Amino acid sequence: MDNRPIGIFDSGLGGLTVFKEVKKVLPEESLIYLGDTARVPYGVRSKDTVIKFALEDLAFLLTKKVKCVIVACNTVSSLALNEVKRASKVPVFGVISPVVKIAIEKTKNQRIGVIGTRATVGAKAYSKGIKKQERTIKVFERHTSLLVPLIEEGLVKGAEIRIFINKYLSPLKKSKIDCLIMGCTHYPIIESELRNFLGNKIYLVNPAKEVAKEVSDYLNEKGMTSKSRKEDRFYLTDLTERFIMTAEMFLGEKISGKALKVIIS
Amino acid sequence: MDNRPIGIFDSGLGGLTVFKEVKKVLPEESLIYLGDTARVPYGVRSKDTVIKFALEDLAFLLTKKVKCVIVACNTVSSLALNEVKRASKVPVFGVISPVVKIAIEKTKNQRIGVIGTRATVGAKAYSKGIKKQERTIKVFERHTSLLVPLIEEGLVKGAEIRIFINKYLSPLKKSKIDCLIMGCTHYPIIESELRNFLGNKIYLVNPAKEVAKEVSDYLNEKGMTSKSRKEDRFYLTDLTERFIMTAEMFLGEKISGKALKVIIS
Repeated sequence: MDNRPIGIFDSGLGGLTVFKEVKKVLPEESLIYLGDTARVPYGVRSKDTVIKFALEDLAFLLTKKVKCVIVACNTVSSLALNEVKRASKVPVFGVISPVVKIAIEKTKNQRIGVIGTRATVGAKAYSKGIKKQERTIKVFERHTSLLVPLIEEGLVKGAEIRIFINKYLSPLKKSKIDCLIMGCTHYPIIESELRNFLGNKIYLVNPAKEVAKEVSDYLNEKGMTSKSRKEDRFYLTDLTERFIMTAEMFLGEKISGKALKVIIS
Repeated sequence: MDNRPIGIFDSGLGGLTVFKEVKKVLPEESLIYLGDTARVPYGVRSKDTVIKFALEDLAFLLTKKVKCVIVACNTVSSLALNEVKRASKVPVFGVISPVVKIAIEKTKNQRIGVIGTRATVGAKAYSKGIKKQERTIKVFERHTSLLVPLIEEGLVKGAEIRIFINKYLSPLKKSKIDCLIMGCTHYPIIESELRNFLGNKIYLVNPAKEVAKEVSDYLNEKGMTSKSRKEDRFYLTDLTERFIMTAEMFLGEKISGKALKVIIS
């Protein structure tokens, strides 16, 4: 038994999709969320900068005496996970490895697609992870840079998002993938539009669900689950009205009234 | 005569459009450019955060012994200009006041439109500036949030950008403006698309040109121009291949080979 909270960090608010999934499978845990909204997005930045920011995010969560840390951000998981693990005294979970596992399990035709930020796709973390285990699998990675700003503007349905889904995903469809990794916290929000475009035969992997399951399995196996839930806490490095709207879209519920603090680094 | 360099700062690379205009009117000056690419964009952030970042940008330029500072960023000019002026030992020029002047001069029907980031439009700096001088002028402000990411992705012509120009600017066209302030450093890049949509009768104000002219007038009037040009220097807080491509789009020439340094704050 371990009543310490679980720490989750992300470049911004997208990681709230991970928060939500962790809450579902581990309802007795206390969660502490850190979103670096003053410096979001990480997905356009260099590896050095992403590492620097990620280590600062980790350091903050460690001051909150968390029992483990979930890196909700695909960009950080792709570019900086080793550095974060080395710097951490507690276990660190990234989104890549549980996603690689399920994608290999789900593909029948050995053709997996990955969409993500420029940084995530540039790092090729998903293809390297997959090919390390199954060399013969073909992985098709594409950055879909404008999906994040479109989603953050609330254009999650309709003509605008469809134009870009079509633009970015047509080559993947032509590559006959049968499994698509939604390699950014934002993409589950547009899952129905992705599904409409891709049809019903392509399996969509939601990293939020996979990492939540991995953390749950780990805590149960090690006897580290909590029996005394405290209020969840949210820390953001910047706050605007718009950020609150976006947070509620990702969280699927109201954030006002919750323990929300702005920290200035 | 004053051979010290002119400092220019921006949230990112868009301010290079200002750099280019200053270069045109003041070819004998040495310029130092700071782009905060590690924390771009500022236009989605809160006033407090924009002020904090702007003061850090100013502090860096002051260490370079500049004779004046140009705030190229419309967001900073709108939200933090007073704070930057108060903190500076040297004259500071923002984009709002020269733009207000020319817009009032150019409008015939007393209806001016403004497009900008969410933060710029939220601050209403342009409408306040105009109405302070000419109460009867009607100002129509609209945020055009997705234009920046579209331009940064290089989608400066064609169907995608037109959809959003149409979406954002139709209400302004209906308001029968005869003058439009392009209130973000990025927008001059899509001037021809804006022109195509708006027609030839609407005057487009490019803040980069207006602030360059104001600085030129000031230095000439005060006898503070330079007679000994040194190499221009570029400082960025983060650097990726993509940032280099974007920089060259704004600058209209190659940046490689130039004095370019990455500084980590």
